[in-house]
Amino acid sequence: MDAQKIIIDTDPGQDDAIAIMMALASPELEILGLSTVAGNVPVSQTATNACKILELAGRPEIPVHAGCAAPLRRTPITAEHVHGRTGMDGPDLPQPALRPQAGHAVDFLIDTIRANPPGSITVVTLGPMTNLALALVKAPDIAPRIGQVVSMGGACSECGNITPNAEFNIFADPDAADIVLRRPLPLTLVPLDITHQFLVSASRLARLRALPGRCAQAAASMLGFSERFDLEKYRWDGAPLHDPCTIGWLLAPDLFAGRMVNVSVEVDSPFMQGATAVDWWRVTDRPPNALFLREVDSAALWEVVLARLGRLP
Amino acid sequence: MDAQKIIIDTDPGQDDAIAIMMALASPELEILGLSTVAGNVPVSQTATNACKILELAGRPEIPVHAGCAAPLRRTPITAEHVHGRTGMDGPDLPQPALRPQAGHAVDFLIDTIRANPPGSITVVTLGPMTNLALALVKAPDIAPRIGQVVSMGGACSECGNITPNAEFNIFADPDAADIVLRRPLPLTLVPLDITHQFLVSASRLARLRALPGRCAQAAASMLGFSERFDLEKYRWDGAPLHDPCTIGWLLAPDLFAGRMVNVSVEVDSPFMQGATAVDWWRVTDRPPNALFLREVDSAALWEVVLARLGRLP
Amino acid sequence: MDAQKIIIDTDPGQDDAIAIMMALASPELEILGLSTVAGNVPVSQTATNACKILELAGRPEIPVHAGCAAPLRRTPITAEHVHGRTGMDGPDLPQPALRPQAGHAVDFLIDTIRANPPGSITVVTLGPMTNLALALVKAPDIAPRIGQVVSMGGACSECGNITPNAEFNIFADPDAADIVLRRPLPLTLVPLDITHQFLVSASRLARLRALPGRCAQAAASMLGFSERFDLEKYRWDGAPLHDPCTIGWLLAPDLFAGRMVNVSVEVDSPFMQGATAVDWWRVTDRPPNALFLREVDSAALWEVVLARLGRLP
Amino acid sequence: MDAQKIIIDTDPGQDDAIAIMMALASPELEILGLSTVAGNVPVSQTATNACKILELAGRPEIPVHAGCAAPLRRTPITAEHVHGRTGMDGPDLPQPALRPQAGHAVDFLIDTIRANPPGSITVVTLGPMTNLALALVKAPDIAPRIGQVVSMGGACSECGNITPNAEFNIFADPDAADIVLRRPLPLTLVPLDITHQFLVSASRLARLRALPGRCAQAAASMLGFSERFDLEKYRWDGAPLHDPCTIGWLLAPDLFAGRMVNVSVEVDSPFMQGATAVDWWRVTDRPPNALFLREVDSAALWEVVLARLGRLP
Ligand SMILES: [Ca+2]
Ligand SMILES: [Ca+2]
Ligand SMILES: [Ca+2]
Ligand SMILES: [Ca+2]
Repeated sequence: MDAQKIIIDTDPGQDDAIAIMMALASPELEILGLSTVAGNVPVSQTATNACKILELAGRPEIPVHAGCAAPLRRTPITAEHVHGRTGMDGPDLPQPALRPQAGHAVDFLIDTIRANPPGSITVVTLGPMTNLALALVKAPDIAPRIGQVVSMGGACSECGNITPNAEFNIFADPDAADIVLRRPLPLTLVPLDITHQFLVSASRLARLRALPGRCAQAAASMLGFSERFDLEKYRWDGAPLHDPCTIGWLLAPDLFAGRMVNVSVEVDSPFMQGATAVDWWRVTDRPPNALFLREVDSAALWEVVLARLGRLP
Repeated sequence: MDAQKIIIDTDPGQDDAIAIMMALASPELEILGLSTVAGNVPVSQTATNACKILELAGRPEIPVHAGCAAPLRRTPITAEHVHGRTGMDGPDLPQPALRPQAGHAVDFLIDTIRANPPGSITVVTLGPMTNLALALVKAPDIAPRIGQVVSMGGACSECGNITPNAEFNIFADPDAADIVLRRPLPLTLVPLDITHQFLVSASRLARLRALPGRCAQAAASMLGFSERFDLEKYRWDGAPLHDPCTIGWLLAPDLFAGRMVNVSVEVDSPFMQGATAVDWWRVTDRPPNALFLREVDSAALWEVVLARLGRLP
Repeated sequence: MDAQKIIIDTDPGQDDAIAIMMALASPELEILGLSTVAGNVPVSQTATNACKILELAGRPEIPVHAGCAAPLRRTPITAEHVHGRTGMDGPDLPQPALRPQAGHAVDFLIDTIRANPPGSITVVTLGPMTNLALALVKAPDIAPRIGQVVSMGGACSECGNITPNAEFNIFADPDAADIVLRRPLPLTLVPLDITHQFLVSASRLARLRALPGRCAQAAASMLGFSERFDLEKYRWDGAPLHDPCTIGWLLAPDLFAGRMVNVSVEVDSPFMQGATAVDWWRVTDRPPNALFLREVDSAALWEVVLARLGRLP
Repeated sequence: MDAQKIIIDTDPGQDDAIAIMMALASPELEILGLSTVAGNVPVSQTATNACKILELAGRPEIPVHAGCAAPLRRTPITAEHVHGRTGMDGPDLPQPALRPQAGHAVDFLIDTIRANPPGSITVVTLGPMTNLALALVKAPDIAPRIGQVVSMGGACSECGNITPNAEFNIFADPDAADIVLRRPLPLTLVPLDITHQFLVSASRLARLRALPGRCAQAAASMLGFSERFDLEKYRWDGAPLHDPCTIGWLLAPDLFAGRMVNVSVEVDSPFMQGATAVDWWRVTDRPPNALFLREVDSAALWEVVLARLGRLP
């Protein structure tokens, strides 16, 4: 079988970095490029971080395109208190020699989707959906050409992680999420309901640390840094690992369960900004627009992460 | 110890009826009166139903006061599809000879709270909070005189039961809930997070049916009727039993756990109307205004229900 | 012809005082009582002010009932910066011997409307509509019994006077206005579009000052005080005189022109709170619910004011 | 003095066509290009219409770039009931040989603004602001490089023309208007308050018809068509002429008066969508962000229109 062509739209972020590494390690996936967006840290930093990861993994041929520096209408929020000053604090990675390409991420998305056969491209979003939303507004013809979108975002039975009801990625640019959710796209949402089940306990982290490659070492170091915040906040046995669940879903969908439901996002109320209304029990007549994942075999998924990261240099 | 004086504001409803019966059977509680409100069925029917319950239990001396026929600003919604035409379908109860009192429920609340020592009255709300909200607006002096309010309402990790995000009682009159939540009142919320853990399975229902009294028989018959809807919807092992959890909390608080948190209600967004923002992880600076219950010993609570209903005629 | 029975619901306020005086001087109107509400100043002060006016005019037999101390859901706002500390600054009126009645304004409204023949009572609101809204929620049976409601409130082509888009009375309790506007009531709105045409110029004020009675003198003194704020703000030739336009409309409807249109109030958006959507050009399918006045013969209306105030002691 | 370089972003539309003709006839203005957007009619039609106008005026060297086919988040609304099937019904213009350029309007805006000296470009928007908003999100660096933006949009003392409170262009894409209004741009708004003063009466139209050129003839024919709708609706002496007021302002600013005020747009409330809050009386602390025009010498402006259209072939 041919590899699945994917574009990863990302705001690294330690957990973005691990998701990207998993994809780099997977022959099932052909990464056509990384597009970056403001989110965990400002957009120039996320592009630099993407370059760092590619260099670390020895894959400088994959293009990086910087995208939107701010959400559509909202004041940018970042999360340095979680991710550190660089967004990927933890390992001591050198400034990359690799540079982002000249073209804007939005045009990279549009041009790549137009240049490939309909249905052949998977877009994975690991941050606010600003780039994808802008691409869909600028070039509505790409919507039916996209194979699928897989997004880390949203929450149903889990409370939010940035406000009582909202998850960070959707809260940061709810207008963009609204645009994506209203398009006729095959969309899979990987919400907090999944990622809060996927905890990196001390013993899990120890197994990652025991892997030999420099990529796995960097990943372990990143997690050691980023999980401090959540361990302090939730006092769970481990910190949730968000973005890698999207790649995990592409590699091992059998480890997940969900339902096709309607997911809508609150854009108007300042109070509930970015909260997702997930019609799990079908109490409205709104048509299903997303596969909303809610169960995961957390232990098996961790094995996938370890196996993939273990293949990297 | 003296009995705790309570007013039950209610829209019976089968589960309201069982909550009221539990209170009638409990010497720890002195019911000063029942005030009724539109909710599960129209207000005239809820007043009649309250009278039916008192007559069945042989307690005609307890006054019933009919209250608001509609929410503050919203179009009334009722739930006959769940509760049947009378709101208490199931047993074959006669039309009651007992009649509601002349005074309006709002004035009954105000006058009773003013006539008793500060802090001595517990108000339990089992339906939309219209009556209590109106009393607080008309007579703001009663707020600091109320001992505590215990309300069935809201949802956090459970999705809503009337929309994807909202619980019925708060959805039905979100403005009223907002008024109550903004007052400096000792408030305990018994949300869907609790009541969806308190399921009446077939074996639990069988034990209720085995009780000898006419009240327990009627209760069993009511539950047999009302749980059909939820069993069909959720396909769980039993239907959730909502309102009795409030009385259960008054009688056996040790069976519950919760946190003092801020709970705010969405009033403005049509889309999220009545959804509760529960700041469980303290991610906002909004001050705590309610004890939000989230855990319950469901088996032990069922024993409380059985023990109390078993004392009634 | 029998006099028209009216209840004036008011938050005096200098312009409320002049409106009340006009009504007191008019045999066409029989004032059944004054109900007061928080608005320009707190509710206890508005009740005292109502008593002051009645004493000044020698009409202590008219009952005053204090009502709601705050809007339904909003933080109270008052306007002492416009009206002075007492709300009726200007003349030196003694503390009144007259006292408000024991009953609540809401019950006074309900009981009076129920006790009189259907269609016989006119309710004039000169402040936030909290009392009338609460009465309609508590006793929905009164809605079809009310003859008409005449309210000072709203704005169409005039910008707001408290925010860019909202008029003070509706902004102060938009939920109450929404409740009133949604009921099937014969309603006339006297908006800023009218009152900003009714300016008290220096020459007009001089004619009022030239009237002999103590009431006219007090009225002139009040206007001398209250118009300072608006003259400073708008730099017009005179300050608008709001509330008396309602009584003017009852006495001389031929001086006004308007249209039956739909008027809806913005309750949800914090930004546009209390703004009125007036469907003057019938561009929506919302049914007409109010006579919205927009033109007035300002010179002739001033003659009415002078003629009436000239009759008082 | 050098000509002022302008880009006209437009959704022709008869009144857009006349505005463009005025600009084509004015040596004070150098039109760098026309960018088109969905609005009065779909975007492909607006691009064709722009080509038609340029061909009619003999100016095929000016590039046309088609832009966004729909608003950012809203369902597109068009106004064929006003403008006819083509959006420029009236004259019998041939299908143009001229074709839009390949590049997207958003990139044309970005590239042109970047390629010219800071402060040298005027952007005139005559339709929904989708293109300009998208350009500002995609390339925030252009905001401080734009010389000024002049937009037909908004309303203050005039009611709206699409809903009771909203003007068409802002209503059609309120999110886009919000984005533009929040940027630090020198912005002039030409609202309904201006355009509803600029009526094309029968005698004015007769003078246009009397001009010899084919462009003036086409303009007269367009107005004869488009004004039918408004004459029917408002029953005024003439129909308002919206978009040409923007070019009129560039050519003869002395004919206009306005104030620097804060203008904010309602995005959240479905009910007030697209309404503008114009802080004319400075009752908020929101900083001024636009020159909001409110007075125009209508007769003199009509002379400007006639003089310019008279110069065209
Ligand atoms: Ca991320
Ligand atoms: Ca209930
Ligand atoms: Ca007043
Ligand atoms: Ca236009």
